[in-house]
Amino acid sequence: MTTHPTQPEQPQNEALLTLEGWYVLHDFRKLDWEAWKMVSEEERQAALDELMTLRATWTQNQADKNGSTAHYSIIGHKADMVFMFLRPTFEELQEVEQAFNKTKFADFTVPTYSYVSVVELSNYVHAPGEDPYQNPSVRERLYPELAPYNHICFYPMNKKRSGADNWYSLTMDERRTLMRAHGMTGRKYAGKIKQIITGSAGFDEWEWGVTLFSNDPVNFKHIVYEMRFDTVSAKYGEFGDFLVGNLLTDEALGKMLSV
Amino acid sequence: MTTHPTQPEQPQNEALLTLEGWYVLHDFRKLDWEAWKMVSEEERQAALDELMTLRATWTQNQADKNGSTAHYSIIGHKADMVFMFLRPTFEELQEVEQAFNKTKFADFTVPTYSYVSVVELSNYVHAPGEDPYQNPSVRERLYPELAPYNHICFYPMNKKRSGADNWYSLTMDERRTLMRAHGMTGRKYAGKIKQIITGSAGFDEWEWGVTLFSNDPVNFKHIVYEMRFDTVSAKYGEFGDFLVGNLLTDEALGKMLSV
Amino acid sequence: MTTHPTQPEQPQNEALLTLEGWYVLHDFRKLDWEAWKMVSEEERQAALDELMTLRATWTQNQADKNGSTAHYSIIGHKADMVFMFLRPTFEELQEVEQAFNKTKFADFTVPTYSYVSVVELSNYVHAPGEDPYQNPSVRERLYPELAPYNHICFYPMNKKRSGADNWYSLTMDERRTLMRAHGMTGRKYAGKIKQIITGSAGFDEWEWGVTLFSNDPVNFKHIVYEMRFDTVSAKYGEFGDFLVGNLLTDEALGKMLSV
Amino acid sequence: MTTHPTQPEQPQNEALLTLEGWYVLHDFRKLDWEAWKMVSEEERQAALDELMTLRATWTQNQADKNGSTAHYSIIGHKADMVFMFLRPTFEELQEVEQAFNKTKFADFTVPTYSYVSVVELSNYVHAPGEDPYQNPSVRERLYPELAPYNHICFYPMNKKRSGADNWYSLTMDERRTLMRAHGMTGRKYAGKIKQIITGSAGFDEWEWGVTLFSNDPVNFKHIVYEMRFDTVSAKYGEFGDFLVGNLLTDEALGKMLSV
Amino acid sequence: MTTHPTQPEQPQNEALLTLEGWYVLHDFRKLDWEAWKMVSEEERQAALDELMTLRATWTQNQADKNGSTAHYSIIGHKADMVFMFLRPTFEELQEVEQAFNKTKFADFTVPTYSYVSVVELSNYVHAPGEDPYQNPSVRERLYPELAPYNHICFYPMNKKRSGADNWYSLTMDERRTLMRAHGMTGRKYAGKIKQIITGSAGFDEWEWGVTLFSNDPVNFKHIVYEMRFDTVSAKYGEFGDFLVGNLLTDEALGKMLSV
Repeated sequence: MTTHPTQPEQPQNEALLTLEGWYVLHDFRKLDWEAWKMVSEEERQAALDELMTLRATWTQNQADKNGSTAHYSIIGHKADMVFMFLRPTFEELQEVEQAFNKTKFADFTVPTYSYVSVVELSNYVHAPGEDPYQNPSVRERLYPELAPYNHICFYPMNKKRSGADNWYSLTMDERRTLMRAHGMTGRKYAGKIKQIITGSAGFDEWEWGVTLFSNDPVNFKHIVYEMRFDTVSAKYGEFGDFLVGNLLTDEALGKMLSV
Repeated sequence: MTTHPTQPEQPQNEALLTLEGWYVLHDFRKLDWEAWKMVSEEERQAALDELMTLRATWTQNQADKNGSTAHYSIIGHKADMVFMFLRPTFEELQEVEQAFNKTKFADFTVPTYSYVSVVELSNYVHAPGEDPYQNPSVRERLYPELAPYNHICFYPMNKKRSGADNWYSLTMDERRTLMRAHGMTGRKYAGKIKQIITGSAGFDEWEWGVTLFSNDPVNFKHIVYEMRFDTVSAKYGEFGDFLVGNLLTDEALGKMLSV
Repeated sequence: MTTHPTQPEQPQNEALLTLEGWYVLHDFRKLDWEAWKMVSEEERQAALDELMTLRATWTQNQADKNGSTAHYSIIGHKADMVFMFLRPTFEELQEVEQAFNKTKFADFTVPTYSYVSVVELSNYVHAPGEDPYQNPSVRERLYPELAPYNHICFYPMNKKRSGADNWYSLTMDERRTLMRAHGMTGRKYAGKIKQIITGSAGFDEWEWGVTLFSNDPVNFKHIVYEMRFDTVSAKYGEFGDFLVGNLLTDEALGKMLSV
Repeated sequence: MTTHPTQPEQPQNEALLTLEGWYVLHDFRKLDWEAWKMVSEEERQAALDELMTLRATWTQNQADKNGSTAHYSIIGHKADMVFMFLRPTFEELQEVEQAFNKTKFADFTVPTYSYVSVVELSNYVHAPGEDPYQNPSVRERLYPELAPYNHICFYPMNKKRSGADNWYSLTMDERRTLMRAHGMTGRKYAGKIKQIITGSAGFDEWEWGVTLFSNDPVNFKHIVYEMRFDTVSAKYGEFGDFLVGNLLTDEALGKMLSV
Repeated sequence: MTTHPTQPEQPQNEALLTLEGWYVLHDFRKLDWEAWKMVSEEERQAALDELMTLRATWTQNQADKNGSTAHYSIIGHKADMVFMFLRPTFEELQEVEQAFNKTKFADFTVPTYSYVSVVELSNYVHAPGEDPYQNPSVRERLYPELAPYNHICFYPMNKKRSGADNWYSLTMDERRTLMRAHGMTGRKYAGKIKQIITGSAGFDEWEWGVTLFSNDPVNFKHIVYEMRFDTVSAKYGEFGDFLVGNLLTDEALGKMLSV
């Protein structure tokens, strides 16, 4: 992999075609346990009822195919829970964030981290004249309905631009080859892991967000570790914090918040 | 691109000519939602009225061609809103910041980030004897009137000075060539994106601030991602945090703050 | 150690086989000494009793071979104590964290750091057809019962992927050779140090967590310093913060919290 | 610029001769606007009176040639004001900091940043047998009386020691040549900018502090940007945060604090 | 200085022999001036009396040759004071930290930084058969009695392991030669500076802590600056924050805390 002089017939800076779907906000919150325990059982129940009402509107929004929402607990000090909101516009993303902030339950939480991105399909090849945004299998991936896997893993990432290891100086062919090998590692986890790639260039601190869902958390470790040996990660991957947790079903949420 | 020995007839360290216009403060604030909900409806209304009065003075200031102001919500945990103030002097920038801090509404906010810079035109070529500061088309760009686009994107950036990738060791010709290619990528977004470049060398943590406005936020992603393949960004660009949000019209602001 | 072209018969990105045991949460807490001293002796005693009850359940959990728990004080400003929880599932890890958060004692603490990982055995060679998870000596290492050493040392680490120093671009043979030399340094400390390696790729900020136990803290310094001269650490090791402390026996805990 | 083998007759590690004058504390404070507005007009006036009394003692200290003090507002979220104290000893620096902390006004402020350094003259050539500390023109620069320029700019900096770009591996001749070119850029700003260089090796996080004063803030941008093209900055300069603001005359201070 | 192939007869990873003495905690605290001023003169006096009693026990501990303690003020926003505790065991270090935390005075302080290390003698050559820990001149350095110099300077440091600049890949001979030159720079400051080197590999974030004492703070600047030109620092030194301050005699402490 050497650096290449710019050639007029094959411009070096050709960006891959990407398709974009729903906008995404990952909203991580810490619970103020002391405050939660201090208020009366009635206040807690009222706050929980309001949260359940909000969750019901998110379920309806998903049934209406107008977005999708996930709600998981998070292990460790970084957060106690995450809301992952997928919505058609920036305005609706802001609205769902503000609607939560206006609840009584939100007063018992502190936002500790968040991530703004958009569902992205890259390197998609479609027939000439076809509008990919009308293709049902494409639509399914751009506007995904999140299913209730038991566990979540979120992390943001960049492609490195450091000295000789500069992803953005590779030709499109080189990038394609590396991504294909990477994709083959990923394919081994088909059926074990559901992966949502969201682009965040221009939106947030890193270039991509990766959200993984699985019923067995050891899969998160295996895929991330195995992929690190792919050249695309070994040489070009830069990773932010990893946050993991468990599905908050109505029952799990009730148990978590019952004191 | 190799490093060059200093040549007496073409000094290596020749800085580009820049023109400067209005000084700029980006003032990012988080809203203390708990406190906002806790006070009475009357107190909230009084605080909102005071804020609306301030917004009216900013509108008048813009009408007087003595500055310009934008007010947007911000998505995610980094902030809930941003004020972007353009003013003729540092003193007026400080005054508008202090005037806001003296309002009741400011007590419900926490400053989480800010950026100090000045509108900059670089590489401007003008006729001999001409004073560019008297040229109307130049003045329009140095003292821009911000228009109400639906979305904002702000990020600061540096040109890298790291080992072999050192922007400031290139000759002016090399820099010009790279910037011209970069500009051509930018030109593809004409009509879709309004861009304000502000210089912050000597003023703040990075060398430039970039503020983008658009009616469709996907444009922010496309331009930032596509530009990353330009050599000037691929090799020399260092980027800070990205912050994005939605226009706060009177109606949107009222809706946001109504609890 | 040079970089190697990909060879079909020996793929470069072959990850070592790893075995995984119990999931681990290191939960670091600072004590709010002012609040602790401010409440009445009765309140303190009630909080301490509740903590002792929780400690008893952890002891029972360990006796049931369903997990293991360690509780140490921490020296310096980063934390005052750490709980190290080993549990069979993510759900049980979350439960033990939440159970602590629901106690009165937890209100006197602030979580300052944490680490999510899983006990890992790497490079394990087993007989064909054998299920290593049924091998008793393997099970002992995957599901370890923590013994009451006087001192603890925890730190997270990565293998470097930086320019020419890229662990993940080495062949498996190269990695094996380097790890073997590293292991020989470690073996000198057998009997002096008990070491638990936990993997955190996909779980937390670094790739591994290292927890050392010893009856003499100078051993922590000697092993970490000596290992730094092994090529695997010298060239490829990246280390996070180190946190050290003393065993909190019932007596030591009582003494610490008596004011 | 290559690395040089150590030669006995010209040791590589020859440090430049430096002269030191007054010790300096830059003390940056944020104002707690909410608290300031909450107290009564009388309390505010009392706090302001106490601050004015302190300012008078600093004026007297300057008249006595026993130190010098500057007080400026700061734009943006990093701070609302800075005190720059120059004093003959560490003890007097600590005293002036403590004296401020003991005022009522200090309770309305939060220290957000500070910098400890000492006025430094480097590369000074003096006649054999002369004591430079008795030379009036040297004394003027080591014990400077700060004049009331309208604007301030402060930033800390290092000389890089990174791979091939290692300032401290250059010979003294190389360093002298580079500094001379740098000085020539600086000389263009004579009359526009007053510059105080303070050394902080052994005192604070960076190796130098730079404090610039000017009546037109655009000069800060021009000098910092132009100097960045000098090899000494392009290759060897590392910069911390930049903080800028406006002179707090009695009138400006009164206006700022009047609510 | 090139990298060396591993030779069986001269293993590359030979660590220097180190001797360890007392464990050390540097405990940095900020004073909550507002709270300190708010309580009654009686409460302040009671808190001060309790602190003086603690100081007396530290004096006794030093007289008993069972440890040593220093107490200095710190200039700037990072801290207002530091306690430097030297004690024979981790348990005694924790005890002295907890004893302070249990005082009323501690409630007026916030721990902002700390450092855990152990007094270290490296590269010590002793006669065969001799137990260096019985050698009086060695004991004096491993168990030092801190003398009341007027000023303190503390900073942590690493030896770099970055690309070609990798301290831990040098042979022991190369390291010895570089350290000898470094030591010669240090020797110039004999009589002006008292230096305590403490090792913190395995204990805290950096590999060493350096504590300097002097009656003239300009010596801190001179030694740190001059040493930066030694190859060992120029190429291999990485430095953390520097913290400086003044001796807190009974009188100075009383003056500081009198409001």
